[in-house]
Amino acid sequence: MTHGTDHRTGTTTLTVVDGDGAPVPGADVTVEQIRHAFSFGNIGFDFIGLANGEPGVGDDHLADLYADVFNVATLPFYWGRFEPERGHPDTDRLLTTAQWFRDRGIALKGHPLVWHTVQPDWLLGLPLDEVEALQRARIRREVSEFAGVIDTWDAINEVVIMPVFDNGDNAITPLARARGRIPMIRMAFEEARAANPHATLLLNDFDLSSAYECLIEGVLEAGVQLDAIGLQTHMHQGYWGVDTMLAMVDRFARYGLPLHLTETSLVSGDLMPAHIVDLNDHQVPSWPSTPEGEARQADDVERHYRSLVAHPSVEAITYWGITDADAWLGAPIGLVRADGTPKPAYDALRRLVKEEWWLAPTTMRTDERGQVQVRGFRGEYRVDVRGAATAFTIGDADTDVRVIWRG
Amino acid sequence: MTHGTDHRTGTTTLTVVDGDGAPVPGADVTVEQIRHAFSFGNIGFDFIGLANGEPGVGDDHLADLYADVFNVATLPFYWGRFEPERGHPDTDRLLTTAQWFRDRGIALKGHPLVWHTVQPDWLLGLPLDEVEALQRARIRREVSEFAGVIDTWDAINEVVIMPVFDNGDNAITPLARARGRIPMIRMAFEEARAANPHATLLLNDFDLSSAYECLIEGVLEAGVQLDAIGLQTHMHQGYWGVDTMLAMVDRFARYGLPLHLTETSLVSGDLMPAHIVDLNDHQVPSWPSTPEGEARQADDVERHYRSLVAHPSVEAITYWGITDADAWLGAPIGLVRADGTPKPAYDALRRLVKEEWWLAPTTMRTDERGQVQVRGFRGEYRVDVRGAATAFTIGDADTDVRVIWRG
Repeated sequence: MTHGTDHRTGTTTLTVVDGDGAPVPGADVTVEQIRHAFSFGNIGFDFIGLANGEPGVGDDHLADLYADVFNVATLPFYWGRFEPERGHPDTDRLLTTAQWFRDRGIALKGHPLVWHTVQPDWLLGLPLDEVEALQRARIRREVSEFAGVIDTWDAINEVVIMPVFDNGDNAITPLARARGRIPMIRMAFEEARAANPHATLLLNDFDLSSAYECLIEGVLEAGVQLDAIGLQTHMHQGYWGVDTMLAMVDRFARYGLPLHLTETSLVSGDLMPAHIVDLNDHQVPSWPSTPEGEARQADDVERHYRSLVAHPSVEAITYWGITDADAWLGAPIGLVRADGTPKPAYDALRRLVKEEWWLAPTTMRTDERGQVQVRGFRGEYRVDVRGAATAFTIGDADTDVRVIWRG
Repeated sequence: MTHGTDHRTGTTTLTVVDGDGAPVPGADVTVEQIRHAFSFGNIGFDFIGLANGEPGVGDDHLADLYADVFNVATLPFYWGRFEPERGHPDTDRLLTTAQWFRDRGIALKGHPLVWHTVQPDWLLGLPLDEVEALQRARIRREVSEFAGVIDTWDAINEVVIMPVFDNGDNAITPLARARGRIPMIRMAFEEARAANPHATLLLNDFDLSSAYECLIEGVLEAGVQLDAIGLQTHMHQGYWGVDTMLAMVDRFARYGLPLHLTETSLVSGDLMPAHIVDLNDHQVPSWPSTPEGEARQADDVERHYRSLVAHPSVEAITYWGITDADAWLGAPIGLVRADGTPKPAYDALRRLVKEEWWLAPTTMRTDERGQVQVRGFRGEYRVDVRGAATAFTIGDADTDVRVIWRG
């Protein structure tokens, strides 16, 4: 059973007053929404080239499609790609990219600070104590250098499998095996928290079984403060359906923490066979988007977002790809085709985010007390009164805002 | 790769001295093993009737077969059967049964103090706080009333699934859901430890996935002292094989705690289909033992015990049934047929436990220093010198024991 979306909305009362503070009845004001409080995220990987004036997948047209729907961009901090040569991190390019997104009103998230895959080769063979020291230093470096620009991080990724991961040699699995899962998590959160006390720090996993529950319970018992629980939902093998998804979300909602659906993908082509366990094991020469697949994807996307936005614990949904060009696993999970045209799923999501759940510019007239009540999805708004704009917020609690009428 | 069994053996040096303390060279002594230090366990459920002079499955013949191989009996403390009427626990019958086993040189284990199945009906519908208080009181009662007779307990059973168990209404699942898994474990261990500080207390589970690892790591981080980790291995769907079993054992061995294979079963008939997830869901009108099945079971049992006794972390293997009569799920998992005749698996296990890994009565002659060195599996032994018996132990460390020669 799905919930409604009343919990997503709030009311702000605007009182229009003149220069003496007296209410102005019968005044026309125009209100409109500027930004959702809810995080509608997507990966920003495709725009690193564009932001830095280099060749890349993203162009201005794709950027416009992105910015029209998404308000948070996940940037890649895979250690092995971010610092392929020890001591030469890719900080400048990522900072430029982050700033490029912020200039478009899009907030940032970094992914991930600790993970056992996409590791730098130069870590291999180092003693465990040195690996730990380097890992700690790398967390502090990235989180402090990006503080104020990126204030949300996947502090550590896929810890359930981390100490028993056997699909590639890396320096983190032996460390996790020696130290234990909870000490690894404590390390990641301690270092990131110290480097940016204002950051929102996530534990993130694809394993949504009882194992993740047990891990979270152990972490909470150990007194590590999680700001949100990250739940990956790559659905290359087909949408799980509303009931299964909500039952999963309910299992993790009982910890009373915000839930972030951190990695969502739904294909617009053939489904990956169900027997594949590690999605990375499925390699196909070509995986086209199809008309039937695109119709199914649009339907899946709409049901997925509707049901999750309606769940009170969910605060973020991050889709895992804007375009099919260069998509993960070559899968047609993008919302935009490789040729730059939007798929039906893009249109469906835009319709929800920017129409059904959005307040378009609306003219209202103040009552005898000089007031209008603006009800809408929580987020940032503006009101225009005789050509002068005032920003206001719709939040959890009903709020009053005074707006000056410049006569 | 399997280990050898050298780590299971030790040496005790016996020095035969006369009444003045002088060594007696050239004296004939007879040594023999009395008991294994390793726990070769089995369930003792079938002998409650016999021990109490009531009708039941077990008879003296079955009891002899049992006592010839097994040195630890697991007794049932399922709350719903132990105390079907509130305030009327089955303490006396179980105490009588426990004493009956001890009279035969068999130690006891109680199973389990906390579990979400086989619950008393009278718990249903009570407020959570009352359920918790009753659960705590029941742990204290059983552990203290049986202290000195039963000093090993499955303190809590199947916690991984406990808060999300949905295969039967019970009062413990809601409690576990409200309190969390680790607080449930802490409750069980705290109460049992307080009631019997000398008890060996186990966490026990059938879920041997990463979920159990995560749970154990959380429990250890939370400072709850586990004395041993219990691993269930009901193999109605077929023996997992040595490699899979040892890889599983290795995953749990890294916590540095003793491992108990608490519930082992291997069928001597058709295998349960692999698609069954909850073994309890497989109900068949008849599940016969077959000659081929019995040969396979004997081979499985031998490989299972050989590989696990060879693993340094394993301290106990408990088989889950002596006879097919009234066996769990009607499955032919017994080591003795319903007609009382031993299956090949019984003979195979007896040969290991009482022949290959056992020191039968052996006459030795003291050297010029009046000494003989006795090497064997750790456990309890006796030496007979001119008709007088002296007990001694072979333990981890080499030991010296003086034996008086009564001239």
